[in-house]
Amino acid sequence: MGDEVKVFGFWASPFSRRVELALRLKGVPYEYIEEDIFGNKSPLLLQYNPVHKKVPVLLHNGKPIAESLVILEYIEETWKSNPILPEDPYDKAMARFWAKFIDDKCFPAFQKAVLGVENERDKAGEEVGDCLKTLESELNGKRFFGGDVIGMVDIAANFVGFWLRIIQEVTGQDLLSVDNFPELFKWTDEFVSCGVVKESLPPKDKVWAVIKARVDQAMEAQTNAP
Amino acid sequence: MGDEVKVFGFWASPFSRRVELALRLKGVPYEYIEEDIFGNKSPLLLQYNPVHKKVPVLLHNGKPIAESLVILEYIEETWKSNPILPEDPYDKAMARFWAKFIDDKCFPAFQKAVLGVENERDKAGEEVGDCLKTLESELNGKRFFGGDVIGMVDIAANFVGFWLRIIQEVTGQDLLSVDNFPELFKWTDEFVSCGVVKESLPPKDKVWAVIKARVDQAMEAQTNAP
Repeated sequence: MGDEVKVFGFWASPFSRRVELALRLKGVPYEYIEEDIFGNKSPLLLQYNPVHKKVPVLLHNGKPIAESLVILEYIEETWKSNPILPEDPYDKAMARFWAKFIDDKCFPAFQKAVLGVENERDKAGEEVGDCLKTLESELNGKRFFGGDVIGMVDIAANFVGFWLRIIQEVTGQDLLSVDNFPELFKWTDEFVSCGVVKESLPPKDKVWAVIKARVDQAMEAQTNAP
Repeated sequence: MGDEVKVFGFWASPFSRRVELALRLKGVPYEYIEEDIFGNKSPLLLQYNPVHKKVPVLLHNGKPIAESLVILEYIEETWKSNPILPEDPYDKAMARFWAKFIDDKCFPAFQKAVLGVENERDKAGEEVGDCLKTLESELNGKRFFGGDVIGMVDIAANFVGFWLRIIQEVTGQDLLSVDNFPELFKWTDEFVSCGVVKESLPPKDKVWAVIKARVDQAMEAQTNAP
């Protein structure tokens, strides 16, 4: 009997898509279960991720794993083909460092810059600039963060590669462009053009609509705040 | 020529002590370099951790690694004796999940509960309670989070094992006691009694004084706030 692999995700979530991209890179077939994360999470999701109650969850032969970066490490150790982490312990540590940097520093900055209250947005925009500058410098002439092939840092940075450029179109912000971060901008083009990445991304127009609704909602809530 | 291993740390930091504890568990000799993290960081620290400019940094044969959990993984992969992570990929994923939970959920809650502004402290106290309840349930009769021996989750939880009980003495808060979380309380006793942990912890009276000064400073700043 083969492996039973299921992914509990939300179609527009970059975190869910990380897991799907890693499985596709490895050629691991999986069943995808869409979660209604806004108010109607399934009993199975709550059972499998009782601590955070969030997607993504990977279910492998009945055993659940939560937290996208933890899942990526598990996928890497379980299915050896097409490694997403370098073998050398130091290079591996560097990849972990950058993936963590994206989650701990970049994401909160992006969120505040786009959905934050008005007087926070400018400062957060500067933080985003610092984050992108740091990523630009880490890229340093490489095709991908992983070198010649897509690795864990590229997967973790999928938000920058796909979602961020759509967000800019929605909000009119100029966070990442060919002028301010040419290498990173080029990387986003390379990244979304890869066959397996393309297959793992949601339709752009639907993401645009979701982001637009979310931004409008945040702005409206701020306008109506006491 | 043997390995050159250096740790850039701050004596009272639980994050620095994580790295030292892991190296001691593995029997890896290292040179410790104390950093003056309040306003006078060394040029070497800034060079080795330009992104976060924080301790701890592990320097192994001239190559720097930052972020304590990333360092722990590197130590585990580089020095094989006395493993701090299980071999099985699923168990390893669970250890990573809990270490991440401690950093992402517990630490921010602890910080707000102790140093936060007055009207946030009660709510944060509840969050701390939720975190400790979750850890209590994960312990579930085991001697250590790692089972019979200390593992990465125990190391990551050193703050709960040592610092938290001192904080309670300073502030008079009742966050963790034998009555509310008996297993976790017992674990803190087991943890700090282990020879190698005891050697890796700072003197209690000095930590008490540092925490007292920090709490007083936070409260004073709040009293003087406009």
